Amino acid sequence: MSSKFKNIGIIGKYAATSVGESLHNLGKFLLDKGVTVYLDDATAKVWPDHTLNVATRDEMGQKCDLVIVVGGDGTFLGAARSLCEYDNVTLLGLNLGWLGFLTDISPDEMETRLTEILSGKYIEEDRFLLHVKVLRNGKLFAESDALNDVVVHKSDVARMIEIDIHVNETQITTLRSDGLIVSTPTGSTAYALSGGGPIMEPELNAVLLVPICPHTMSHRPVVIDGNSVVEVVIKGDQVSEAQMTCDGQYGIALTYGDRIIIRRKPQIIRLIHPHDHNHFHILRSKLGWG
Amino acid sequence: MSSKFKNIGIIGKYAATSVGESLHNLGKFLLDKGVTVYLDDATAKVWPDHTLNVATRDEMGQKCDLVIVVGGDGTFLGAARSLCEYDNVTLLGLNLGWLGFLTDISPDEMETRLTEILSGKYIEEDRFLLHVKVLRNGKLFAESDALNDVVVHKSDVARMIEIDIHVNETQITTLRSDGLIVSTPTGSTAYALSGGGPIMEPELNAVLLVPICPHTMSHRPVVIDGNSVVEVVIKGDQVSEAQMTCDGQYGIALTYGDRIIIRRKPQIIRLIHPHDHNHFHILRSKLGWG
Amino acid sequence: MSSKFKNIGIIGKYAATSVGESLHNLGKFLLDKGVTVYLDDATAKVWPDHTLNVATRDEMGQKCDLVIVVGGDGTFLGAARSLCEYDNVTLLGLNLGWLGFLTDISPDEMETRLTEILSGKYIEEDRFLLHVKVLRNGKLFAESDALNDVVVHKSDVARMIEIDIHVNETQITTLRSDGLIVSTPTGSTAYALSGGGPIMEPELNAVLLVPICPHTMSHRPVVIDGNSVVEVVIKGDQVSEAQMTCDGQYGIALTYGDRIIIRRKPQIIRLIHPHDHNHFHILRSKLGWG
Amino acid sequence: MSSKFKNIGIIGKYAATSVGESLHNLGKFLLDKGVTVYLDDATAKVWPDHTLNVATRDEMGQKCDLVIVVGGDGTFLGAARSLCEYDNVTLLGLNLGWLGFLTDISPDEMETRLTEILSGKYIEEDRFLLHVKVLRNGKLFAESDALNDVVVHKSDVARMIEIDIHVNETQITTLRSDGLIVSTPTGSTAYALSGGGPIMEPELNAVLLVPICPHTMSHRPVVIDGNSVVEVVIKGDQVSEAQMTCDGQYGIALTYGDRIIIRRKPQIIRLIHPHDHNHFHILRSKLGWG
Repeated sequence: MSSKFKNIGIIGKYAATSVGESLHNLGKFLLDKGVTVYLDDATAKVWPDHTLNVATRDEMGQKCDLVIVVGGDGTFLGAARSLCEYDNVTLLGLNLGWLGFLTDISPDEMETRLTEILSGKYIEEDRFLLHVKVLRNGKLFAESDALNDVVVHKSDVARMIEIDIHVNETQITTLRSDGLIVSTPTGSTAYALSGGGPIMEPELNAVLLVPICPHTMSHRPVVIDGNSVVEVVIKGDQVSEAQMTCDGQYGIALTYGDRIIIRRKPQIIRLIHPHDHNHFHILRSKLGWG
Repeated sequence: MSSKFKNIGIIGKYAATSVGESLHNLGKFLLDKGVTVYLDDATAKVWPDHTLNVATRDEMGQKCDLVIVVGGDGTFLGAARSLCEYDNVTLLGLNLGWLGFLTDISPDEMETRLTEILSGKYIEEDRFLLHVKVLRNGKLFAESDALNDVVVHKSDVARMIEIDIHVNETQITTLRSDGLIVSTPTGSTAYALSGGGPIMEPELNAVLLVPICPHTMSHRPVVIDGNSVVEVVIKGDQVSEAQMTCDGQYGIALTYGDRIIIRRKPQIIRLIHPHDHNHFHILRSKLGWG
Repeated sequence: MSSKFKNIGIIGKYAATSVGESLHNLGKFLLDKGVTVYLDDATAKVWPDHTLNVATRDEMGQKCDLVIVVGGDGTFLGAARSLCEYDNVTLLGLNLGWLGFLTDISPDEMETRLTEILSGKYIEEDRFLLHVKVLRNGKLFAESDALNDVVVHKSDVARMIEIDIHVNETQITTLRSDGLIVSTPTGSTAYALSGGGPIMEPELNAVLLVPICPHTMSHRPVVIDGNSVVEVVIKGDQVSEAQMTCDGQYGIALTYGDRIIIRRKPQIIRLIHPHDHNHFHILRSKLGWG
Repeated sequence: MSSKFKNIGIIGKYAATSVGESLHNLGKFLLDKGVTVYLDDATAKVWPDHTLNVATRDEMGQKCDLVIVVGGDGTFLGAARSLCEYDNVTLLGLNLGWLGFLTDISPDEMETRLTEILSGKYIEEDRFLLHVKVLRNGKLFAESDALNDVVVHKSDVARMIEIDIHVNETQITTLRSDGLIVSTPTGSTAYALSGGGPIMEPELNAVLLVPICPHTMSHRPVVIDGNSVVEVVIKGDQVSEAQMTCDGQYGIALTYGDRIIIRRKPQIIRLIHPHDHNHFHILRSKLGWG
């Protein structure tokens, strides 16, 4: 039986030589199924013995109908951001022995699960990303995407930052705190959870705002509509005391007056899970629920 | 100019004689505008001097295109539950001097606000309710509606209860706690907030599950899709140690094995707010945000 | 070598027939060591085959220099309250296979641990209890002790209670909530933890006040000096809507105007632990700390 | 009547020219009472028009029996740290219109309050400080004091830090988080409160450990005995990713393997309050308790 997916990309954990054996097994397995396989060029560099086609992320986005990410949730986040402009890409996460929220297939079940998936037996799930623009003096200064969260954080450990938060052009509050997490449902089990936020079902069209160590006890996590535009304005007279990060992987320094505008990205990421996948089962396993 | 609403019902705070003056002013104001006015029969009993038409809730539901609730959020919750089966009813909340989330027009601005609203200058907002069925031995034992929340709570103060929670027929966890709050976005600023839940935008199609004093620290508030079916099963071998309440106003005793099935009610409640209403402004005022 | 303890009492888990084998082994072990053994009379009733001396709690308090509690933390709490008036009593907790904070010796290590302890190799630790008096119309209405906590709680599930809290005759706040937990350090890992309180080192001379689902977000757990006098006054005009429990085991209904006065009991309980006991190790094990 | 205090130092808010008028009035008031007044040399620099004696902090520590701090709690923290080695110094805090926990006398009541205090009508309160040593490669690398808190915090916004926490040479946990707050009771209403810690009575001999955004939900604030030795060890293989601050005012960069040893400082700070001062009244006012 021919595979449902014809062109499959492979992305390995960044700079991790240990991932070689998993990649080798995966590549061999896919080639045996008659699939055309492309290896991510950054991955290829740390795994020189491979015999696969090499592709840049852009080539992968254009050619592949499935991209398999081998690593942890962090690797998956980076892959998702780099491929989210390509409508036809679907992502699948294999972990290296440590169950992830996004990388939910373990090494010991790889062959069984992939056989099922290539034969068309799987669950699809859409996840949205956030797009963030930073305006400085009214001009675009930086922009990025995030699958988990955009975080505005103090960069001077000893101080708090003061920010204005607007939703759809209405100011909702002035916040004095360590920072603010603007999270997707996907990110609600990551940093937002450490900050005291609720867990959100992954496919909910909602955005979560979590104040980090707020100075005022009445500030609480807020869940808003996923189509809202969130604007954060850096207040105070300190220069360059704040920082913004996307998924904890991309960061820039912010300064007084910067406006950070965050909205749902129109393109989504399609995830593939085993046919019997259930998000709550992963929650139970990872959080130790009874 | 004739009023946008022709038949307006009035519901006063339950058993509150003090509300008489407000009701008198309101009735007179509406009659002067040429509107037909119906006074809720329970309200009429505690305010014998009135000269208005009297109507049962069902009559009000059939005849009125607007029902004005005079009192606090508690009065509004009861009015909403009693009228939610009538598609054509729109609700408006006047408070008695204490700003509410649902009763956001104050006595001193009543005339100005109502003049605007009757002339068609207002904001409409839809709020959904939860419908709850209790099954005992597989048969329908009780059912009710809730605009804020359905709470399953221990009734023996000294003990905790053990419940299984299912979402869309998947068991998500077994919870040992004081109870569980299943809340609408409307209810997120009520008991759910005291229990540690997030604040949710009112029009979000989402349901919030908040464990009350959970025995396990990994149990956290969870936000799920508004179209989910939540099922709570009472575990343990104690008889009649749990209780269920809707909006803190309707309550029944639960026993071992009872299944509480909660889902979004198909009918919604339409709220009317002043044209410059903003939910975040009420949050700022009531929570003391900067 | 003769035992450090000459007269040892045994108290088994309340109404638990399953505890028989453990009690049998324990009794035999102690008799073999030449110790005089007294079995708690309530325990004797559910374990008719025993061949030990039977003693009431008062007799046990007078005769024994060590009392061994076989069961869970709940059994231990009851034993501590019933024996705390007797200065010479030391308590030791054996669990039935499930590690407790107070019953930290497991069945499979019973013989080794007891041999060490009888030979004088152990750690002593003092724990204090709370004494609570309820005054109604200015007269003593009820009193009790608590090793974990005194809880004042709403008894009508649908309502909150309103209480005034005084510390050393200064009113510190009016609290609208589900209730208030007044906890010893021992109780800080029990119900107070579910309510959001901190963990306290067992030997600290401090008392913890934890509001349960407070209506105002600024109400937080408060740690006060262990010698403070806490007074809780039931406010509001509802009759008999509140309840007080001690260790979740003794409870009475409260009414409007009742004054609950809580202070550290002069007598302490002496606990015995294995020589290598460390409270933080139990915390790590029970809370899953890394 | 002669003043109870003969030599009084004055410390003004750092680099705040606006404080001049308050200092002028205070200096004049004290001189009129026949007291010898010393102005802090740093304060003197920003207020050139003064006519008072100038003293360094050390001179002030040697000569003064009372030092009055004019500013906010931050000014008071710095003054306390700089004077805590001098046993004979007592501190009094005047705020500039904004009630502080430590600076609880307002400008409009300055004369009345000071008249009372100079005549001997006041309350004394002892507060302890923490002393912290940083050991690098086993050698003393830095040391400092803190009246509020010692904070170990990630310095790379995008990452968490991993630390081992020991209390009295027992490892209590490995913590992955944004950081750890080690707080005195005085500091419990400052950053520790934002981090979710309890409020502690100021004179309690206890130390509070508050994890900041812990990765594991079972990590909670912990209250330990005030005489404990806390040791924090920086783990992980990242260089220079952590930072330590004292009272948010003194900070140094930390690196892998650094050991931060925190213990109660033997010297205490004596605070003077108006005779009718009550800490809970300040809490009620600042936190908005009912």
